[in-house]
Amino acid sequence: MAFDLIMPPIVGLAGLLVAFVIYNVMSKHDAGPDNVKRIADQIHVGAMVFMHREYKMLAAFAAVLVLGIFLSPLGQDTAIAFVVGAVSSATAGYLGMYAATRANVRTAVAANDHGPAKALNIAFYGGSIMGLCVASLGLIGLGGLFLYFGTDVESVHSIHGFGMGASVVALFSRVGGGIYTKSADVGADLVGKVEAGIPEDDPRNPGVIADNVGDNVGDIAGMGSDIFESYCGSMIACIAIAATMAVAADQQTSLMMLPLGLATVGLLASFIGIILVRARSSAAPEDALRSGTLAAPVVFAAMAWFLVQSLGLEAKVWWAVVAGAVGGVAIGLITEYYTGGSPVRKIAKSGETGPATVMITGLAVGMESVVVPILALAAIIYASTELAGLYGVGIAAVGMLSTVGITMAIDAYGPVADNAGGIAEMSGMGEDTRKITDGLDEVGNTTAAIGKGFAIGAAALAALAIIAAYVSTVSVLNPGFTLELSEPQVLIGMFIGGSIPFLIASITMTAVGEAAFDMINEIRRQFREIPGLLEGTADPDTERCVDIATTAALKRMILPGAIAVLAPVVVGFGLGPESLGGMLAGGLLGCVLMALMMANAGGAWDNAKKFVEKGNLGGKGSDTHSAVVVGDTVGDPFKDTSGPSMNILINVMAIVSLVIAPLL
Amino acid sequence: MAFDLIMPPIVGLAGLLVAFVIYNVMSKHDAGPDNVKRIADQIHVGAMVFMHREYKMLAAFAAVLVLGIFLSPLGQDTAIAFVVGAVSSATAGYLGMYAATRANVRTAVAANDHGPAKALNIAFYGGSIMGLCVASLGLIGLGGLFLYFGTDVESVHSIHGFGMGASVVALFSRVGGGIYTKSADVGADLVGKVEAGIPEDDPRNPGVIADNVGDNVGDIAGMGSDIFESYCGSMIACIAIAATMAVAADQQTSLMMLPLGLATVGLLASFIGIILVRARSSAAPEDALRSGTLAAPVVFAAMAWFLVQSLGLEAKVWWAVVAGAVGGVAIGLITEYYTGGSPVRKIAKSGETGPATVMITGLAVGMESVVVPILALAAIIYASTELAGLYGVGIAAVGMLSTVGITMAIDAYGPVADNAGGIAEMSGMGEDTRKITDGLDEVGNTTAAIGKGFAIGAAALAALAIIAAYVSTVSVLNPGFTLELSEPQVLIGMFIGGSIPFLIASITMTAVGEAAFDMINEIRRQFREIPGLLEGTADPDTERCVDIATTAALKRMILPGAIAVLAPVVVGFGLGPESLGGMLAGGLLGCVLMALMMANAGGAWDNAKKFVEKGNLGGKGSDTHSAVVVGDTVGDPFKDTSGPSMNILINVMAIVSLVIAPLL
Repeated sequence: MAFDLIMPPIVGLAGLLVAFVIYNVMSKHDAGPDNVKRIADQIHVGAMVFMHREYKMLAAFAAVLVLGIFLSPLGQDTAIAFVVGAVSSATAGYLGMYAATRANVRTAVAANDHGPAKALNIAFYGGSIMGLCVASLGLIGLGGLFLYFGTDVESVHSIHGFGMGASVVALFSRVGGGIYTKSADVGADLVGKVEAGIPEDDPRNPGVIADNVGDNVGDIAGMGSDIFESYCGSMIACIAIAATMAVAADQQTSLMMLPLGLATVGLLASFIGIILVRARSSAAPEDALRSGTLAAPVVFAAMAWFLVQSLGLEAKVWWAVVAGAVGGVAIGLITEYYTGGSPVRKIAKSGETGPATVMITGLAVGMESVVVPILALAAIIYASTELAGLYGVGIAAVGMLSTVGITMAIDAYGPVADNAGGIAEMSGMGEDTRKITDGLDEVGNTTAAIGKGFAIGAAALAALAIIAAYVSTVSVLNPGFTLELSEPQVLIGMFIGGSIPFLIASITMTAVGEAAFDMINEIRRQFREIPGLLEGTADPDTERCVDIATTAALKRMILPGAIAVLAPVVVGFGLGPESLGGMLAGGLLGCVLMALMMANAGGAWDNAKKFVEKGNLGGKGSDTHSAVVVGDTVGDPFKDTSGPSMNILINVMAIVSLVIAPLL
Repeated sequence: MAFDLIMPPIVGLAGLLVAFVIYNVMSKHDAGPDNVKRIADQIHVGAMVFMHREYKMLAAFAAVLVLGIFLSPLGQDTAIAFVVGAVSSATAGYLGMYAATRANVRTAVAANDHGPAKALNIAFYGGSIMGLCVASLGLIGLGGLFLYFGTDVESVHSIHGFGMGASVVALFSRVGGGIYTKSADVGADLVGKVEAGIPEDDPRNPGVIADNVGDNVGDIAGMGSDIFESYCGSMIACIAIAATMAVAADQQTSLMMLPLGLATVGLLASFIGIILVRARSSAAPEDALRSGTLAAPVVFAAMAWFLVQSLGLEAKVWWAVVAGAVGGVAIGLITEYYTGGSPVRKIAKSGETGPATVMITGLAVGMESVVVPILALAAIIYASTELAGLYGVGIAAVGMLSTVGITMAIDAYGPVADNAGGIAEMSGMGEDTRKITDGLDEVGNTTAAIGKGFAIGAAALAALAIIAAYVSTVSVLNPGFTLELSEPQVLIGMFIGGSIPFLIASITMTAVGEAAFDMINEIRRQFREIPGLLEGTADPDTERCVDIATTAALKRMILPGAIAVLAPVVVGFGLGPESLGGMLAGGLLGCVLMALMMANAGGAWDNAKKFVEKGNLGGKGSDTHSAVVVGDTVGDPFKDTSGPSMNILINVMAIVSLVIAPLL
């Protein structure tokens, strides 16, 4: 059966259907007694309120951009594509998070009533819905648009708008969600655990609901839109590069169709992976998850082979796809080492000489951790371009991201399990239940670390592919265009681009600090002013905290978002396409380095704290513990706010550049 | 009077003579009573022992490189130039530090016996000798070599060896000195101030001599060789670029002679600046120093105008020189803001919520602080290349560095004043003396911050010029050579290059931690095992601590040094000249960003601590104080070890690439 452009949207619809079925199965599970339900509802409603308010602001911001695009020479089609991209991304995030905030409570109840196997199932159901929504809506949105515009080289440019729409949504979701989750976390921990001396997730803590909401809006919706953006961005880049290639017409059409084809078979492979995890749910959680993670890429690679053949393309292209898929796994595994191996124990050990050495060691680990992933990326670039030129980079990125259905499912499983633990604690489900959810959560932490490494690698390749598409597009319009590094224009752009990630990292870290400060003041006020709160005889005003975190995050996501969107426009029109190209290269380098450094340092600090809390080096309450807690607090905005913002920052800058390329 | 190639060495010799006269004047001042002399001698001898041992290791390392160069097709002349460069740099560092460790004690005694004006004079004498030695030996070494080789385009390549020799010395001095100074500082502070509760620079502390030695080997010898390297590197790059330019022969000779001419008039301008500071020494120290800092560039610019005219070059070239000189000052002033202005108070304030927020705020300040200097660099690059092409970048760097005699003098003044304070404390000179030296030291801290910003800017431009020379040299040998960013070879190189600064920063930070650990153990041992030490009835074994710091630093400087020298060789021969070019670009970007971030974050943390210690926000002993001390401890290796290593790292990689360019 030959591949046809009608397939991606159809398989995408099938994916949504599967997600819907899973949702129904999941939501039939018991949501527990009323007190449990009430807590879960607070989290669910808090998350949904944040999403609504965020999307309202986003809509205003997007409306301005759509109007600008519509009035520019880019015209109507790009504007339509932008809207479709933005809506697809927002829908994926919304549906995934909706389901996740239903699955968390059912996971807790299942852990309490039935034990770990069933709890794992439900948590993974929650994650799967997110994974399937991302993959399916990508195929429906982008595939549908491609079907509508056709493979006509002239009209392909409009499709870039889809990427820009998805990017803008991802940017705000990632940054806003990142600020939300960490300000709530830091605020709740600092006042609750440190000042009031009550346990984590204690229901007396007014910030605890906000903290749990944060996990959902940051780690689920934020991560989902981030991956959605890379997923679609890499496909769009491939199509754009193919459109500028000087090859025979049918060959060109095949090259343009391949990315969507790969994503289609990737979703099919993800189905199989998801079924496998479900089938093995009685095994240890890490084994069950690993079955799915390993099986899906193998199945995908096999199906991709036939797809490449059926499109009449060379085997070399397939090898580029494989290079991407293997590289993604490799980068994930390196991340696992730095955030879980001997570096973590070294950081914990350095806690014996106080917080300063924890900081120095953690930063040193983070900096060192960039080297091997960078070499892996270099190897993927080398291999894929040797095999298939610039198109190779793009198709390698697509290869890495095609099985996003399962990787995202496993990623999103983590915060669901984490939330389940929070609900178990808040509703007083007892030690045994908490032990089960802790076990599920621990596996989730490892998969989250791997997922972060994977997301950085994928985002880097996707951005590189988009940059390559930008260069190709500008070159077609301006023959003689080069990005010669010894040209001052390019060099200046590179310097400017390299400084932007530092600026955004600084702004987002400061934002977390400020937003956390608002939270701290509110929680302190409640402890002070609500009589009987600490004694457990009065209820905290958790909604007020949710509201404060929401407002704080939404207010502070605007500046970094505006910088990311405007920087390419200012440099492109102000200094020209050469400087813009240089800026993208410098920005890519800076973003990848900072993303890896911050994610890995943050993850390592987090696990060093957990290592001490397990009773090592003096355990909880020791001086060593206070020292590693400092590391974890610094690591929180590193790994969950500023670091992840880097992925999306470079992709936004790249896709905006690609969109405005014809105007330069 | 027309400019002649005999002038640079002659003016250089005059500079050395002036330095010798100043040394004699300075050393006639009273070195105080025997107990003071004894302490000063310990510091002097400790510093000299370190230099001897360091130079011995360096000689072995250099011998291998010289042999390699000699046996390679580069041949004898490059090997000779290497030796001359290495010897010039080492001599400048040695003489400057020799003088500084004589000036420190005389400054303390003068402060005690005669008051601030005389003390300022002597401290500045000490700094001036270093400044003059750097400028003079550069002119003698490089000027002499140029005179010997002639302006013949063919033989110009040999002169690159001079830059490589200077770079290798600078690399080890900077890294070794940086590890020494911070391990001693951290070790002495942690055990002395924190554990034993005795004041800083207390003579009972076994690590206190090593700490004072560290200021000399790190901030004087290390900084001196760093600046020497940028100073000569920028000239060499200019000569190399000029040699590849397709212009009339006499024009080309003029362009090749201009850098040495500028350095010559720059030294003359520095004389005037030094005289001015001396003449105004009865004013407030900051005013006296500022007179010299501002007057010298103005005089230099005027003389440069006549030089450019007399060489028959266009006025545009002069404007490029001015762009560099002005840009250097601008970057210095921005640095002053971030390490002294409102960001410092913000960090101090964040200490109220503990060490974690101090870390987050400080890192955010450091990251933000890269933006404006990067824009300033971009502006210099833009202006200078518009005016005079790639040669413009080189000549702007020379313009920035020509008045190195005075800028380095003011830089080196700081550690001399700091040491004077240490000696005053150790020998119990009393409150009033200490107040005077503290005042001098405070001014020194500000000038040091400006000097660091200046050094980063100058190093970046010098490296860029060397990279441009590399590209020009390769292009002449391989017509058709381009550094096209969309070529995978270039891109891979860029990624690899960007990761190297992170690796070196990680290694050097870890080295400080490990070396400090050795120091801590030894100091603890002495407090434990020497009876009567804490009571002041027995003497500590300070020599043992000096020895430990020396050994630790020398052992740990080898790995980063080897990586810096070998990386270009491996990438150049392994992946080709395109990848090497990409690596230099990525390395330059990464090094400049990290250097700025680390220097400014470190400086800001340091001053935040000082701000609290002046009695703000609770003052010494408060919780806020302990929080900002953590920031300062992390900032120490940032600003004095890893950060400064970045400047020299990129210059070493660039100059090694330039040297091996003909072999690729």
